[in-house]
Amino acid sequence: MTTPESVSDKLDAVRLARSYLVRVAEPPAPAVVDFVAQHGPVAAAEAIRAGNCPSRVRDETEARRTHDHAQRDLDEGARLGMRLLIPEDDEWPGWPLLSLQLAASRGVQGVAPPLALWVRGQVRFDEVTEQAVAIVGARAATGYGEHVAGDFAAALAGQGISVFSGAAYGVDGAAHRGTLFVGGTTVALLGCGLDAGYPAGHVVLLDKIAEHGGLVVSEYPPGTPPARHRFLVRNRLIAALSEGTIVVEAGRRSGARNTATIAGALGKVVMAVPGPVTSALSIGCHELIRESGATLVASVDDVIETVGRLGTPRPEKVRSKRPTDGLGPDALRVHEALDRREGKSAEQIATESGVPVARVRALLPALELDEFAARCESGWRRRTRR
Amino acid sequence: MTTPESVSDKLDAVRLARSYLVRVAEPPAPAVVDFVAQHGPVAAAEAIRAGNCPSRVRDETEARRTHDHAQRDLDEGARLGMRLLIPEDDEWPGWPLLSLQLAASRGVQGVAPPLALWVRGQVRFDEVTEQAVAIVGARAATGYGEHVAGDFAAALAGQGISVFSGAAYGVDGAAHRGTLFVGGTTVALLGCGLDAGYPAGHVVLLDKIAEHGGLVVSEYPPGTPPARHRFLVRNRLIAALSEGTIVVEAGRRSGARNTATIAGALGKVVMAVPGPVTSALSIGCHELIRESGATLVASVDDVIETVGRLGTPRPEKVRSKRPTDGLGPDALRVHEALDRREGKSAEQIATESGVPVARVRALLPALELDEFAARCESGWRRRTRR
Repeated sequence: MTTPESVSDKLDAVRLARSYLVRVAEPPAPAVVDFVAQHGPVAAAEAIRAGNCPSRVRDETEARRTHDHAQRDLDEGARLGMRLLIPEDDEWPGWPLLSLQLAASRGVQGVAPPLALWVRGQVRFDEVTEQAVAIVGARAATGYGEHVAGDFAAALAGQGISVFSGAAYGVDGAAHRGTLFVGGTTVALLGCGLDAGYPAGHVVLLDKIAEHGGLVVSEYPPGTPPARHRFLVRNRLIAALSEGTIVVEAGRRSGARNTATIAGALGKVVMAVPGPVTSALSIGCHELIRESGATLVASVDDVIETVGRLGTPRPEKVRSKRPTDGLGPDALRVHEALDRREGKSAEQIATESGVPVARVRALLPALELDEFAARCESGWRRRTRR
Repeated sequence: MTTPESVSDKLDAVRLARSYLVRVAEPPAPAVVDFVAQHGPVAAAEAIRAGNCPSRVRDETEARRTHDHAQRDLDEGARLGMRLLIPEDDEWPGWPLLSLQLAASRGVQGVAPPLALWVRGQVRFDEVTEQAVAIVGARAATGYGEHVAGDFAAALAGQGISVFSGAAYGVDGAAHRGTLFVGGTTVALLGCGLDAGYPAGHVVLLDKIAEHGGLVVSEYPPGTPPARHRFLVRNRLIAALSEGTIVVEAGRRSGARNTATIAGALGKVVMAVPGPVTSALSIGCHELIRESGATLVASVDDVIETVGRLGTPRPEKVRSKRPTDGLGPDALRVHEALDRREGKSAEQIATESGVPVARVRALLPALELDEFAARCESGWRRRTRR
């Protein structure tokens, strides 16, 4: 039997390994993510550090594999008020991020799930994703766009919905501010390290978000500068972590439309706010509605109707009704990956659930004890407790 | 063989009968329309005048059947520069109005086709409906709504598309003016007699439409005052005579939405222009897009793509390619109603085509001569000339 100390020691080792991994591989790193799922983070990190890994993994890590700043990043992060959240933590938003795993397994490019996330703020990440909507849009928003973004954000927050956005000027900033204004929960996803001081004009806003019940989040370790490709890569997290994405003002080509496209590919709800046809900044929204099947939302009632109508009901929402309600997110994913008739190996279950194989091996006996899983000749199969 | 004189005499008699019918029955008058289709306008008018008709027809005509102003209306109309256009005229827009007939036969209420139409203007009615789009919207339009209506109308007119509307203040007026401004063709459908001087502020506009290559049209005889129910009844003509209806600004409940609803019921394309979500006058447009499946149009290119993509291709557009291209609209409708295998009686063909049975009987031998129809044991069947 393991003592609390040894569990904690093990989690520390995993966190250190993931701290190494999240810096060594520029996201998204699908080969590294698969490699970690197969071997667990500690063994994967060791193999990568030693250059003892398949060529696809080496390609994603070669440039930085000897830069081992894992402990320094954890120390520096702690000093700066950040923590490194990892999939092995209870707080990890495993359920919404599962959409990335599923899309990647369907062949969607560039949507590998994050290896870990740097977080500033006091609330639990899994709680703020329970009911979340993303509001994104043009940096050079008009007064109309900023007004609508702030108004929608405040009204959603008033209904207990978290507002996710990208901390950019314009629509993003208005969404964060609108949420803070009514004391709601807002989450800013960055395309740079949390200490990058970017965007410069939003440093105070980001501090306020972290201090007032929200989170500032990035998969980039401290010191990572902003870059255009990082904003695009970051967009998959905004899309995945929310039930739906609302685009408020977007030009013909824009980052907000990129987020909307990813949200669609992840099977999330895509919504767009119309505006005057005479405004260049509403063109992207109108095209999304007209050509990409985005749902027109003209009010927060429209948003709630749309998310409620199309959104995937989450286990959290029906917690009191299901026998699996007591399970943590990883156990739930392992349980979901099991089949009632056909036995599966721990490796198969790890691949299908996206839960590291080491953790799958640890969870299966616990699931067996609770009558959620059973051993059989060909591995493990699902049971459902009455 | 009939001489030109006798044909002309016969048409005069039919016109006189329809002049009586269109005044005696307040539109839409489905029972009267059916009765006329069965017996022809002259016999139907005589029967109604004598009170010798089924109770449904009597109900629709009882109040006015003894008011025979048929000749006086024709004389008065001629004096005022109007003509009474009837389905027996070549110029009658039989093809687009067929949508009313078909919808009525599917059980849609309140969409019986008109018995005749009073017209001011020099152009042929069938020509202006060859490529036509309706632009409708709020009377109390904003500057934005009037701007968009005028802009869309001018651009559509520039592409040779006629712009239909209802001559009301606000969006309707802006659409008519935008068309006239670029020398395009616009058609105003009224819910009162053409001499009613309504709306008072648009008397000069209506004169200009009639004088500058457009038409002013109503199924109400001279002297009929405007009334709320007449505008709603008139809306079915706007919807039917155009390939699609564009709603530019509409409140939650509005006449423009009524026109859009009818257009949808007629199988026409329904389009709506988005606007600021903060504008009460765009609520109706957004609801049409969000809830009623209207297509968002943000530009005239969008309109043309939508009408082209969804609109029924009309025989006129492919005139050079089909063997039936030489046929007039009634002959075409009779030909369409024929079946290749199963013979049909003239009465059946009249019912299905909406062409009066007397005219069906006159057209069938001509179609036979041209190898478009053949007699068989059970009536008439379709042939297609090579």
